Amino acid sequence: MPHKLMQMQRAVHQAPVRRPVMLAIAGDSATGKTTLTKGLVQALGPERSTSICVDDYHRYDRQERKELPFTALHPDCNYVRIIEQHLQLLATGQPILKPVYDHGTGQLTRPQLIEPRDFVIVEGLLPLHTTLTRACFDVTVYLNPPEEVRREWKIKRDTQKRGYSVDQVLAELKRREPESEAFIRPQRSSADIVVRFAPIAGRDDPPGTPLSAELLLRPTIRHPDLNGVLSKGDRRAIHLKLARDEDGRPVDALHVHGYAPREESEVVEKAIWSQLGVDVGDPPDTLGKLDGTDRSEPLAITQLLLLYHLLEATR
Amino acid sequence: MPHKLMQMQRAVHQAPVRRPVMLAIAGDSATGKTTLTKGLVQALGPERSTSICVDDYHRYDRQERKELPFTALHPDCNYVRIIEQHLQLLATGQPILKPVYDHGTGQLTRPQLIEPRDFVIVEGLLPLHTTLTRACFDVTVYLNPPEEVRREWKIKRDTQKRGYSVDQVLAELKRREPESEAFIRPQRSSADIVVRFAPIAGRDDPPGTPLSAELLLRPTIRHPDLNGVLSKGDRRAIHLKLARDEDGRPVDALHVHGYAPREESEVVEKAIWSQLGVDVGDPPDTLGKLDGTDRSEPLAITQLLLLYHLLEATR
Repeated sequence: MPHKLMQMQRAVHQAPVRRPVMLAIAGDSATGKTTLTKGLVQALGPERSTSICVDDYHRYDRQERKELPFTALHPDCNYVRIIEQHLQLLATGQPILKPVYDHGTGQLTRPQLIEPRDFVIVEGLLPLHTTLTRACFDVTVYLNPPEEVRREWKIKRDTQKRGYSVDQVLAELKRREPESEAFIRPQRSSADIVVRFAPIAGRDDPPGTPLSAELLLRPTIRHPDLNGVLSKGDRRAIHLKLARDEDGRPVDALHVHGYAPREESEVVEKAIWSQLGVDVGDPPDTLGKLDGTDRSEPLAITQLLLLYHLLEATR
Repeated sequence: MPHKLMQMQRAVHQAPVRRPVMLAIAGDSATGKTTLTKGLVQALGPERSTSICVDDYHRYDRQERKELPFTALHPDCNYVRIIEQHLQLLATGQPILKPVYDHGTGQLTRPQLIEPRDFVIVEGLLPLHTTLTRACFDVTVYLNPPEEVRREWKIKRDTQKRGYSVDQVLAELKRREPESEAFIRPQRSSADIVVRFAPIAGRDDPPGTPLSAELLLRPTIRHPDLNGVLSKGDRRAIHLKLARDEDGRPVDALHVHGYAPREESEVVEKAIWSQLGVDVGDPPDTLGKLDGTDRSEPLAITQLLLLYHLLEATR
């Protein structure tokens, strides 16, 4: 065989390739990955950002899966090596021809060309499953709501948008539980930020009060300094607390209460924004948008923190 | 951004990767690429060989192409950068998720996992179109029948297997001609071997006589030494002739006449086979197979020569 690797290397296009900043948003189904992603793409602008979902890399369609002893959550049900390959390609600034899974029909359809932009957001069930996928990211997030919150979200979405009955959704959740435990939840320990949207225990908030959130900020990346801002004054609705992670290691826990008045969350938003050193105006006002006209301060702060990391990584 | 490239490199699977031997078979539509490929896969064994068709990388389906000012032959009608990427991946021993174009329906469908085996045969309209695709191959072939032969083949195939009328095929050939000239035929100059199946001018062979072939053997790769074998005795049905290529450079032209008796072509086949240094038996007897039970000695010799190069490249 001739010196083919060298031949290939010499033939590669000479244009300097810019590597995009890569963000992973991992979590079980119906944990809010798409809502979080949408707000980020909107804030960054679609001309600068691309988002993909690794659930498109299903190896089998819905019909075929019925015959199989595992669910769509199982790594064997997904082209994991191709996910690794495509993430490497995107991370090095190259386009991919991404497979497409149609959640409506449950079929695998015609693939789609994805050109990496400045920011690539990768959401899905298993983006942090292997050492190699994890190595492709600059920032990693795991969405970790309590199971009862997730169940409620999943029932709402799958009955309203995907044509399932409540019983079907509950049966599916039960069937998936062992694989959630084995493959999805272990990704939690690989995230730089773990976000838990949940009601606050013991409070008797009126129905419709937005959920609160706890953001674990692991020192695996350099977070903006919020300690100074939040220690001033009497901020009970938003506060930062030194804590121990599940494995005993030190971590910052940012608590944002759902009833937090807009003025309090604005203090945090502006602090993060100003630490970015961008002097131009206020944080994007599309942050925190839920379905319809609802707004969540905890979501807005999560998104702003991620924007901080994405923009910071371009420097 | 952290040292992500290093991170990724360190995370790559450690198993030593074997690089497959790669063969390109380029040519216009209905030049016999599939027939040639099938015989090679059969001879090598499907467990050791994979074949793919780069026409699967069409950017638009048949319906969409109707609105476009170019045909499927145009590079803009194909994901050329993805072809380059996938050939590089295969050439370095990595799997790909290959798009699939359904010639029956004219639609792009669910992609297919291709794992490289010892030998990868890549056929299609544009496998030699760019410097980078060419760099991925160990051996390259261009099929170059006269246009009247190709027209006949295309009418036969497209009316019998793809449901077109003769007039539709002729109109399509006319529409494609400028792009054949601009993009397909220039690949001829990049091939190590140019194969021209054609009747011999001036001979009045009975109908049904297999076509003859001229194989240009360019010194861009090291061909088996046939000169010694073929200069002995009076071989008019098969002979090797020193010639000048279109651009004036020296080249060997191997002529195999369609009426060549099996004994004469066996001499060449055995000469090629013995130069491989494999002592085990005779050349595979599936070589030269056409549709049905027909057999072509020129095709058999072409395939054997390619087998020689493929096996030689593994050493």
